[in-house]
Amino acid sequence: MAKDMTLLWGSGSPPCWRVMIALEEKGLKGYKQKLLSFEKQEHKSKEVLEINPRGQLPAFKHGNVVVNESYAACMYLESQFRSQGTPLEAQSAGEQALMLQRMFEGQTLQQKLSDVNYYTWHVPEAERHDSALQRNKEALVTELQVWEKNLQQAGAGPYLAGKSFSLADVIVFPVIAYAVRFGLSSERYPFLGKYYSLLKDRPSIKATWPPHWLENPQGMDTLKDL
Amino acid sequence: MAKDMTLLWGSGSPPCWRVMIALEEKGLKGYKQKLLSFEKQEHKSKEVLEINPRGQLPAFKHGNVVVNESYAACMYLESQFRSQGTPLEAQSAGEQALMLQRMFEGQTLQQKLSDVNYYTWHVPEAERHDSALQRNKEALVTELQVWEKNLQQAGAGPYLAGKSFSLADVIVFPVIAYAVRFGLSSERYPFLGKYYSLLKDRPSIKATWPPHWLENPQGMDTLKDL
Repeated sequence: MAKDMTLLWGSGSPPCWRVMIALEEKGLKGYKQKLLSFEKQEHKSKEVLEINPRGQLPAFKHGNVVVNESYAACMYLESQFRSQGTPLEAQSAGEQALMLQRMFEGQTLQQKLSDVNYYTWHVPEAERHDSALQRNKEALVTELQVWEKNLQQAGAGPYLAGKSFSLADVIVFPVIAYAVRFGLSSERYPFLGKYYSLLKDRPSIKATWPPHWLENPQGMDTLKDL
Repeated sequence: MAKDMTLLWGSGSPPCWRVMIALEEKGLKGYKQKLLSFEKQEHKSKEVLEINPRGQLPAFKHGNVVVNESYAACMYLESQFRSQGTPLEAQSAGEQALMLQRMFEGQTLQQKLSDVNYYTWHVPEAERHDSALQRNKEALVTELQVWEKNLQQAGAGPYLAGKSFSLADVIVFPVIAYAVRFGLSSERYPFLGKYYSLLKDRPSIKATWPPHWLENPQGMDTLKDL
């Protein structure tokens, strides 16, 4: 039981989701948790700011230990509960390097997705340019092709760091699922599609599936033409 | 000796510099290394692409193990050479959480610095807006104030994760030094200034100081009014 842990989270946020997957994989059940609404600006509420002064979700606390950055929280949980639940760290030097490499490349993927999907959210109307959005889309296509290539290399997969599920999957799967939710074509990106299919029914992932995606299984098609 | 390691790097790049600091701290001397020029586009050369298909520096190889993402490389080096040189991982749960938290907050600092310093580099002329650059500057000031506050908390410091030098310092110091190089005022940001002074003469940092900063000790003043 993990009654000394508190997680404040938002539905569909890859940073929140990855912490929830890590908690499940490490067998940390029964933590205090609260689903908050980004739309209602609840991530800027006093409740969040007390744990996370940046006013961002996730906000995560283990006893008196606060660790809000989602990568940090996942790594912290693996390190503190190493012998509990699923071992999430690759063992050999080569696998460990690959795990770390993919984890951090995942940030580039997430950034480039966000540059396309949140363009109108992040850029005020008077500053928007079709040419900028087009360039962001091209950068995202290039990035998606890097991931396709990584997954189809001889001996690669089925997981991101090789034969075992690892922190790389905990951290990057929500980003890939997010791309699929927004219409990523599994015909144009078959290796990403296959990876998504392999993981989507994994118990830790199913148990933490974004509730508003369950309520409304049809996502948007922002990315379908990429 | 670390003759089975190769590092291709660029001068003044925080991602390259942090890997060099990690190598020094772990006592890994004598690695093969080559200084390349971003200006001459040498990071897009065949030599780099063979190790790092993204055409970015650092490009780093240990035997057959490739790990180019700079955070990944630093964490890999600590993990593979744990008992050698300076221990770079905090021990207690609280220190470990703080170390990880600061490491990842460091990415936000680096991003916001880049959004100001490289604005004209990243945004084509026809898409530039004074309002956007102004917003980026305000976001950077807010971020710098977060770091000031972190460093002045009761019991904080002198290092980023507390009493010991750790991966958080290896990773974030180059970003802070970069801000100082571009004119950050130690009057307006005294805790960042103090932190910079504490670390700038540390042997691992002095030994890896960007050579073109040594040649030309006077930096630019882009950030002096922030």
